[in-house]
Amino acid sequence: MQNASHVRSLIRQGRWSSHTSGLADEHVQGNVVILPESLAVDFLRFCQRNPKPCPLLAVSEPGDRRVPMLGSDIDICSDLPRYRVWRHGELIDEPTDITNLWREDLVSFVIGCSFSFEQALLAAGLPLRHVEQGRNVAMYQTNISTEAAGLFGGPLVVSMRPMKAADAIRAVQVTSRFPSVHGAPVHIGDPSQIGIHDLSRPDYGDAVDVMPDELPVFWACGVTPQAAIQQARPAFCITHAPGAMLITDLLNHQLASF
Amino acid sequence: MQNASHVRSLIRQGRWSSHTSGLADEHVQGNVVILPESLAVDFLRFCQRNPKPCPLLAVSEPGDRRVPMLGSDIDICSDLPRYRVWRHGELIDEPTDITNLWREDLVSFVIGCSFSFEQALLAAGLPLRHVEQGRNVAMYQTNISTEAAGLFGGPLVVSMRPMKAADAIRAVQVTSRFPSVHGAPVHIGDPSQIGIHDLSRPDYGDAVDVMPDELPVFWACGVTPQAAIQQARPAFCITHAPGAMLITDLLNHQLASF
Repeated sequence: MQNASHVRSLIRQGRWSSHTSGLADEHVQGNVVILPESLAVDFLRFCQRNPKPCPLLAVSEPGDRRVPMLGSDIDICSDLPRYRVWRHGELIDEPTDITNLWREDLVSFVIGCSFSFEQALLAAGLPLRHVEQGRNVAMYQTNISTEAAGLFGGPLVVSMRPMKAADAIRAVQVTSRFPSVHGAPVHIGDPSQIGIHDLSRPDYGDAVDVMPDELPVFWACGVTPQAAIQQARPAFCITHAPGAMLITDLLNHQLASF
Repeated sequence: MQNASHVRSLIRQGRWSSHTSGLADEHVQGNVVILPESLAVDFLRFCQRNPKPCPLLAVSEPGDRRVPMLGSDIDICSDLPRYRVWRHGELIDEPTDITNLWREDLVSFVIGCSFSFEQALLAAGLPLRHVEQGRNVAMYQTNISTEAAGLFGGPLVVSMRPMKAADAIRAVQVTSRFPSVHGAPVHIGDPSQIGIHDLSRPDYGDAVDVMPDELPVFWACGVTPQAAIQQARPAFCITHAPGAMLITDLLNHQLASF
């Protein structure tokens, strides 16, 4: 088991600027969204209304670079390998440190990510095709609407993992224990029922093979809030770069509800 | 099974102004807090940080009297039997309708309440002493601090139900399925470990007998956010009157996570 604080310190020193998959993998990793306080109440309400795609792990005090509930030494300005800076919905930079962009009105949101429930699935002996094939998970926009709040809304984005029926049933049980990292699936089987017409053409990530004896199993995905932000086009926003998560001191096991 | 919408309509017409315990009892009931939008972000953050005492079921749009996610016909100004109106932390009125107090900047918060998990415990065959004795549940301030956010903070308040050990274990299992109505207990056994020195003198509600072969079992309680608000002393706030809850269209069973 790698030490989360040690890995964060390497990232903070600029010695790691790539994705965090597999790093300190017993620890919870989080999607990060940083918004001005004027938009924080709408974004909080959006997350409250859409807990499956947007399970909030922590919300910082305005202007405070720390997130003490997830790690006593966290500095949100330096502890992610790479950030994305957005102005009016346009991506303008991908820095490895945002200290020079920090403002007293910024609020940081940390949202649970599927790395935690994937670790639980693997620990339960359930094979994950995209891991076997060394690819990113396949993600799709659905025709399911999120519950909007203020500027924030748009479609639910899901990730898909193909499984045999018995494994799909076990996966429902295993992931139900982890509501703070997307929880149980939102759909199993026929993709067209949720507006997905070609599994071989994901909207994000990589396609994976689905065997004839397998069901596609769909989970709410942390790309949903990112898509909501891109649609909302806030004047200023910072997010993590894809796959470059915040590594927290929480252990995946600590998130289990049962 | 009573119809939630019908019961709400009786309340709306002023034909019921008492507590809601036992009304439409297969339906989820909620604690209600109404605050100006300027305080909403802090209160949302407080609830996010303290999900066991403050499980948010819904947050309204600012100025919108409706709460459509909990019932298409809900009018938050008339659908509670009785309200409490607070100014600067002082209770100034207990009206049965707040239409004349409504403002365009008010946000309504509906928070899960223990009626739902008590129904699940009774359905599982677990006796509840305060129900048997026809009393209110016993509630205590603890020495456990909530995680503060802005103005809101203060101690965790718990409710206590005495149980034999086997029933206490079963109660952990049953209530773990209901994270949105306080979830699993926060403590079992020695009350002094959480700062409670005399079970016969609850801070709220009524004392109940604890038999020699029983353990006191403690759950996070919805009085916690009320105590936080009283301590914060906002310039203006409306809450439900004790026991006079919002009856929603949600069924208790729908809240089960597993």
